[in-house]
Amino acid sequence: MQSFDSPSLNTGDPIRVAVDAMGGDYAPQETVKGALAALDTHNMELLLVGDSQAVEGELDKYGPPSKSVKVVPSVDKISDEEHPMHAFRQKPEASIIVGARLVKAGQADVLVSLGSTGASMATSALVLGMMDGLERPCIGGPFLGLAPRTVLMDLGSNVDCRPSQLLNFAALGSVFAHRFLGTENPRVALLSVGAEKSKGNRQVQESYQLFESSHLNFVGNVEGMDFFGDKADVIVCDGFVGNILIKFTEGMGTALGGYLGRLLSPYMSEEQMKGVFNELWQTTNLPRTMGGPLFGVNGAVIVGHGSSRADGVSGAINTAVRYVEMGLLESMREELAEVSRNGLLGDSQ
Amino acid sequence: MQSFDSPSLNTGDPIRVAVDAMGGDYAPQETVKGALAALDTHNMELLLVGDSQAVEGELDKYGPPSKSVKVVPSVDKISDEEHPMHAFRQKPEASIIVGARLVKAGQADVLVSLGSTGASMATSALVLGMMDGLERPCIGGPFLGLAPRTVLMDLGSNVDCRPSQLLNFAALGSVFAHRFLGTENPRVALLSVGAEKSKGNRQVQESYQLFESSHLNFVGNVEGMDFFGDKADVIVCDGFVGNILIKFTEGMGTALGGYLGRLLSPYMSEEQMKGVFNELWQTTNLPRTMGGPLFGVNGAVIVGHGSSRADGVSGAINTAVRYVEMGLLESMREELAEVSRNGLLGDSQ
Repeated sequence: MQSFDSPSLNTGDPIRVAVDAMGGDYAPQETVKGALAALDTHNMELLLVGDSQAVEGELDKYGPPSKSVKVVPSVDKISDEEHPMHAFRQKPEASIIVGARLVKAGQADVLVSLGSTGASMATSALVLGMMDGLERPCIGGPFLGLAPRTVLMDLGSNVDCRPSQLLNFAALGSVFAHRFLGTENPRVALLSVGAEKSKGNRQVQESYQLFESSHLNFVGNVEGMDFFGDKADVIVCDGFVGNILIKFTEGMGTALGGYLGRLLSPYMSEEQMKGVFNELWQTTNLPRTMGGPLFGVNGAVIVGHGSSRADGVSGAINTAVRYVEMGLLESMREELAEVSRNGLLGDSQ
Repeated sequence: MQSFDSPSLNTGDPIRVAVDAMGGDYAPQETVKGALAALDTHNMELLLVGDSQAVEGELDKYGPPSKSVKVVPSVDKISDEEHPMHAFRQKPEASIIVGARLVKAGQADVLVSLGSTGASMATSALVLGMMDGLERPCIGGPFLGLAPRTVLMDLGSNVDCRPSQLLNFAALGSVFAHRFLGTENPRVALLSVGAEKSKGNRQVQESYQLFESSHLNFVGNVEGMDFFGDKADVIVCDGFVGNILIKFTEGMGTALGGYLGRLLSPYMSEEQMKGVFNELWQTTNLPRTMGGPLFGVNGAVIVGHGSSRADGVSGAINTAVRYVEMGLLESMREELAEVSRNGLLGDSQ
């Protein structure tokens, strides 16, 4: 469906991908399996960060790998239940922290994490630092297979955002849409409850003015149905709204499977329906199949869904490799600087 | 699918339903057609408010009606594009205003409007007045055929709500879930980005405390996927979020139709697919098929979707008849008084 599913084309130095092998619901079994699958399709080297014995045990199942695979030892992991900042101090050798340090030290080009998103965010911000003008990382990307080129920012990492934060999300999302998805001059919109400038809550109304005076290709407000109408390439919202939407969509995809089963069973075999539902699930669970970048940190970090199986891990690594190949990090720094030059940046506003 | 689709059972006085015959995208043709269809299935009388000539012209198409149909003349209508308050003053004999006056004067038991929601809200608030402690009407109800017993409040009439407003929505939604949908002791939840009390934006975190100390059956926060998991009967959110969700769902239903067409065409005929898509559309467009009450006004008003065809008009009238039969208005007044007695009410807080 998407061009970015294809194997990478670079013929230069292999891209060094660090994977937090202990992160995710099915680690290290599925992380290792998925990482090895990705290794075969890209010009990359693999650094598996985790408990040496456990990771090597998994590696042994698959025989000698086709390319360079290194195990980087770590101690412990940070779970979803822990407070990220607290855990960061308590477990300095946790897999996600060791992984981030590899990127910081220039020993890896990108880190892929399937573990706690909160821990990935906190660790990345603390170890790698934030880009100028940003306080916290944000998460975004295409979230809907029905609109695979439409980027939604933020997906839940920031709530109660100031207008200046939304503008930064827009700038980062624009670069992603342009460079990663190949959209020329991406149309940026604010998610609201009506198209008119006067519609929306205070946050959106104030942001509208800021967006209008920015250098971005701002096309105004869009509404909930406009995700399906090709009205904008980057849709910006508070993470509170984005998180509800993405989880709602995932839930709906799963629920529709059961619902359609009843409607379709007169026409199709179980096996045929399974194929349809599988595609439907992927369409409504896009981030689970490809992961998404942690925007705003000074280093490349790709976050996948915690419930990813091997193919989700491979998908996140695909995204990671292409992210590095395309030099997105540098483009984003430049874009934020451009916003800043226009006097519009500022978490400090 | 739903028990409230069945004909009414009351054998007392017929319920007098005023319909704004000029409201909606297909008025008066579809409004009159749908109203006549509903007339046949309920113990009701019909008051069609509108341009006499136009309405009578439509009535003539169908021959003598089975029951009492009265045409109540009005002049002009308020469109979606007009500012509701401004139009209210400029067009004192507009169909929606004449209709609301019928309810106020006790000449109709309920008003059904397919026209501008803003105009219906403003007119109802001004002509009928608000229940104690409320400043503005709110809109809510089941919005998802996959979860037809789950009430979402508010769907877009109030943004930037105070916690006390969300509590009022919860109280009104509870009565609706209990009396209209038959749910015993409805579970009330706040829509958020995590189940824990600490999760959410400021609005939700502050509301959590207020909800906890209320007499409602508060079960905590739910997330986007929980609409499909039977976690709560009444889900409360700011109208900004509710409006985005309802429009997103409608758009998704339509888009899925096209998407599934491609997946299903090898297995089914065009005609068979049409049946499936039609059911899917209804499932994702529930409010279009049944309308919903305008909560908080001192009179029964049911608002249907502007794009309703005759069956959507009939659906809204079904809802109207049952709303009156069940004495929901009185129950809601009592529930708000209960909230107030607990010292928790107060748009003035």
